[in-house]
Amino acid sequence: MSESDLDVRHAEKMRKKKEARDKILATKTIEKGLLIVHTGKGKGKSTAAFGMVMRAVGHGMKVAVVQFIKGRIETGEKAVLDRFADQVTVKRMGEGFTWETQDRQRDIAAARAAWDAAKEMIASGTYKMVLLDELNIVLRYDYLPLEEVVAFLRDEKPEDVHVIVTGRNAKDELIEIADLVTEMTMVKHPFRSGVKPQAGIEF
Amino acid sequence: MSESDLDVRHAEKMRKKKEARDKILATKTIEKGLLIVHTGKGKGKSTAAFGMVMRAVGHGMKVAVVQFIKGRIETGEKAVLDRFADQVTVKRMGEGFTWETQDRQRDIAAARAAWDAAKEMIASGTYKMVLLDELNIVLRYDYLPLEEVVAFLRDEKPEDVHVIVTGRNAKDELIEIADLVTEMTMVKHPFRSGVKPQAGIEF
Repeated sequence: MSESDLDVRHAEKMRKKKEARDKILATKTIEKGLLIVHTGKGKGKSTAAFGMVMRAVGHGMKVAVVQFIKGRIETGEKAVLDRFADQVTVKRMGEGFTWETQDRQRDIAAARAAWDAAKEMIASGTYKMVLLDELNIVLRYDYLPLEEVVAFLRDEKPEDVHVIVTGRNAKDELIEIADLVTEMTMVKHPFRSGVKPQAGIEF
Repeated sequence: MSESDLDVRHAEKMRKKKEARDKILATKTIEKGLLIVHTGKGKGKSTAAFGMVMRAVGHGMKVAVVQFIKGRIETGEKAVLDRFADQVTVKRMGEGFTWETQDRQRDIAAARAAWDAAKEMIASGTYKMVLLDELNIVLRYDYLPLEEVVAFLRDEKPEDVHVIVTGRNAKDELIEIADLVTEMTMVKHPFRSGVKPQAGIEF
């Protein structure tokens, strides 16, 4: 086929695609706060959530971030969030769960404190988006009652607030009530070839 | 089992996990610029890349962003990137590929211009990270010769520069030479229940 035939065929194909897409979008009229879950063993769960937080900040929204796991270095994110301190509130769960502490009772107490803070911020009317970073891990270790978390997110989250939950091994009950669930799958990882965690990539 | 038995068992389990993890990390000593690919049909490909860009910015790095597809509203990202104009250079591919234009020859020319700019920025020594946003789409439509792109990223990317490529349908040849590949899989999408694209979520 000649280049100009290709061009014509392409234009027609794209016109049809756009038509189909516009038609679908026209049926999407509901605006509401979503419950979003990023799970899976791959990378990008917290990073994509951080990207959503930054995008929301760019839209002038107020955002809250609750970090349920401490211990990973995240100086890059912190430096950026600090620049938007007027819009972003960050709660770090004290000396909570880390690979370093291994004190279950203290972790349970810290998870409870973080969850109480999270509930308050979600319900406050102040924030348009709340990120519950690594909440899935806390639920996996049974540091918080799953039923309580699911019931709150299902019944008490205000209609206009977006909540993002990250962490591998998301509970089925959470996926069940979520609006948007993405699984990050690892296809290839640099650790396999001896590459160490690096600034801007892992933290 | 009593709570205190659980605590003891947990501490021991965590100690072993940490030991194993430290052991693995100790073998990871190579520091190098990675070729990273985010692909798959799920959400979060560009958003996670944007998160990485912002994290790198937080580390004080200079970052370049080349957007190979225009047409989606991304005012939130733009507003944030503008705040860091001293560290981030953004190239948008003119009136390039969009659902609106459907002009194949113009799209090919725009893809070429964007790729030339990308190569220059990757090779410049100025940027520690370069995001090639939606390059996979351009490659899928054969707007750029795959061999040329693969050869450049494999042989001419400076050792210390991270390059991130996003877009669904990543070519096998690209995955083959990449260091880190993550596939975003859609588990559940709000469009299914009639929810429209919203600020902070889709754009």
